[in-house]
Amino acid sequence: MSRVHNFSAGPAVLPMEVLEEVQKDLVSYKGKGLSVMEMSHRSPNYQAIIDDAMERAARLMGLGDDYSILFLQGGASTQFLMTALNFGSKSKDCCYVNTGSWSTAAIKEAKILGLNVNVVASSEDKGFTYIPKDLSKVASDAAYLHITTNNTIRGTEYQELPSVAAPLIADMSSNMLSRPYDFKKCDLIYAGAQKNIGPAGTVLAAIKKSFADSGNEGLSTMMDYRTHISKGSMFNTPPTFSIYVVGLVLKWIENNGGLAGIHEINKEKAAKLYNLLDSSDFYRGTVVPEDRSLMNIPFRLPSEDLEKKFLAEAGAANMLSLKGHRSVGGCRASFYNAMPMESVDFLVDFMKKFESNNK
Amino acid sequence: MSRVHNFSAGPAVLPMEVLEEVQKDLVSYKGKGLSVMEMSHRSPNYQAIIDDAMERAARLMGLGDDYSILFLQGGASTQFLMTALNFGSKSKDCCYVNTGSWSTAAIKEAKILGLNVNVVASSEDKGFTYIPKDLSKVASDAAYLHITTNNTIRGTEYQELPSVAAPLIADMSSNMLSRPYDFKKCDLIYAGAQKNIGPAGTVLAAIKKSFADSGNEGLSTMMDYRTHISKGSMFNTPPTFSIYVVGLVLKWIENNGGLAGIHEINKEKAAKLYNLLDSSDFYRGTVVPEDRSLMNIPFRLPSEDLEKKFLAEAGAANMLSLKGHRSVGGCRASFYNAMPMESVDFLVDFMKKFESNNK
Repeated sequence: MSRVHNFSAGPAVLPMEVLEEVQKDLVSYKGKGLSVMEMSHRSPNYQAIIDDAMERAARLMGLGDDYSILFLQGGASTQFLMTALNFGSKSKDCCYVNTGSWSTAAIKEAKILGLNVNVVASSEDKGFTYIPKDLSKVASDAAYLHITTNNTIRGTEYQELPSVAAPLIADMSSNMLSRPYDFKKCDLIYAGAQKNIGPAGTVLAAIKKSFADSGNEGLSTMMDYRTHISKGSMFNTPPTFSIYVVGLVLKWIENNGGLAGIHEINKEKAAKLYNLLDSSDFYRGTVVPEDRSLMNIPFRLPSEDLEKKFLAEAGAANMLSLKGHRSVGGCRASFYNAMPMESVDFLVDFMKKFESNNK
Repeated sequence: MSRVHNFSAGPAVLPMEVLEEVQKDLVSYKGKGLSVMEMSHRSPNYQAIIDDAMERAARLMGLGDDYSILFLQGGASTQFLMTALNFGSKSKDCCYVNTGSWSTAAIKEAKILGLNVNVVASSEDKGFTYIPKDLSKVASDAAYLHITTNNTIRGTEYQELPSVAAPLIADMSSNMLSRPYDFKKCDLIYAGAQKNIGPAGTVLAAIKKSFADSGNEGLSTMMDYRTHISKGSMFNTPPTFSIYVVGLVLKWIENNGGLAGIHEINKEKAAKLYNLLDSSDFYRGTVVPEDRSLMNIPFRLPSEDLEKKFLAEAGAANMLSLKGHRSVGGCRASFYNAMPMESVDFLVDFMKKFESNNK
């Protein structure tokens, strides 16, 4: 069976081994006579599945018992709201770094709640093509600092996490578990699963328990992190099947050398495309080199007409989702953890041929 | 391969045809070279899947263009909050019928928001063993009336929807699309998918557009029904795979005679167990006959020791999840749409044998 080359920014390509295991066990999980989709979330069979996924997530990030691993619903967009509800303040600074559309959306939710929002740094002045590093405006008594570690649309990425005195909240939706970070710098990490760690439908979060306990009181039940911590993400029915697939992907990451191992592979994949962009007068990268993302690589061609032609020919050559986000145009290749090297090579070869045919 | 008899209250048994189709297409959806889990939600392939599921849902309920079909996240528990946020009032009555744990939880969320809550009817006086019918306390200018059409834990079910002047909001989580109702009586219907219509991880909702437009202003983006209506449930990444499976289940319902057809089968299944309960001095149903649920059938044995023995022997005989909810004890069999007649017969035969062996 022939697979497409899937450069989607998310939901995105999953490891073939994981898909094959899911397929094999779809009707009867490990011969137990029912699908994971049919299991009561209160059954021992399912408890083992979610426990395994949580343990793998904590192990991969090197987080201990002072953190809770959570599986939540509603995507990062709901986390924009939950973070603001739980930790926001109308007196202390709620600090945000604005690095693009998703940061902007997080800021919007805090403003809707009437919080004391302080955008302490922004790269909007240069079209979000870099990561601003000066965080001197973050007061040590700020309620929190919120950052977006990888910017899916613009293609920038924090190479390391910043150090600040205030609690650090990191939206890692598009680079979660694709590289080592000093995760312990964060009080709260969250990520929609549908990029590097699984199918859409669940958010993986890690929260320092003492930070959760310090949150605002009187919140609606589902919006309160403490609800989900106290019930092990089983206050209500969790997205059981998505969590199961995430667990298999986490096992696959561990089997591929953990975060250090997967990072080496991700660097090698991205370098192939960045090297082409840097050596070409035809293609043009859009991000300052030091802040380039390993996950999402936007690029432009000499004209919009050539971009249209490029996308049409790429589609005909079995390559999906190379179009840039509708808000910025151009082209974008997403190379998440499960992107095969073969697809990267196929794209780079195609781009070289397209350049020589259209120069 | 032998299947278990799965009486789980949810997540629950799915149609074998659906599981087999999901399995067949798991790695490569209809030969397209990628899994549904890997598809960009913005791709034409996926748009066709969600459009199909929405059209089937509207057709099954007989709802026209004045309603929007939505796929949301966070379960019914998040709907308790969203309904209260969107339509709640601190001056007009926010009316609730309390028929058990889930109604109680919905009421709790409205109270957290400080709304003007009026519990207009309750069956708490008799352990939630019936559906209260007198709705004369619902003012015609009430903000809304909220009901729970099937009570998973207690085993009661509305045989038809009430008629009130106020907008009607119905939590149909555990009997959605298991029987015909006059759905047009409702301004808003919602249901976690994991009982009758699919895997956990998505909520199917139907909302009258004019009702949504009448909602409160200034809400957080993800909490506002209008956000999801305006973007066709694609404001952010929806739980793509869960929605795909729901679409297959809805097709299966249509192929089984639609709601009228599935209702006949559901009545036949439930009657087999209720007839046994009614004819036995050993087993005892817990609900008044006129309000009995076709979906969830709680029953008791002469003693807790016999209940323990019953559950142990049932488990050994390949029957899962017959234990009553931890809040009420006893036994419970859930017969959702996809429960095979064969499993019902197996249970009833087992119960007859257990009775004669232990009387």
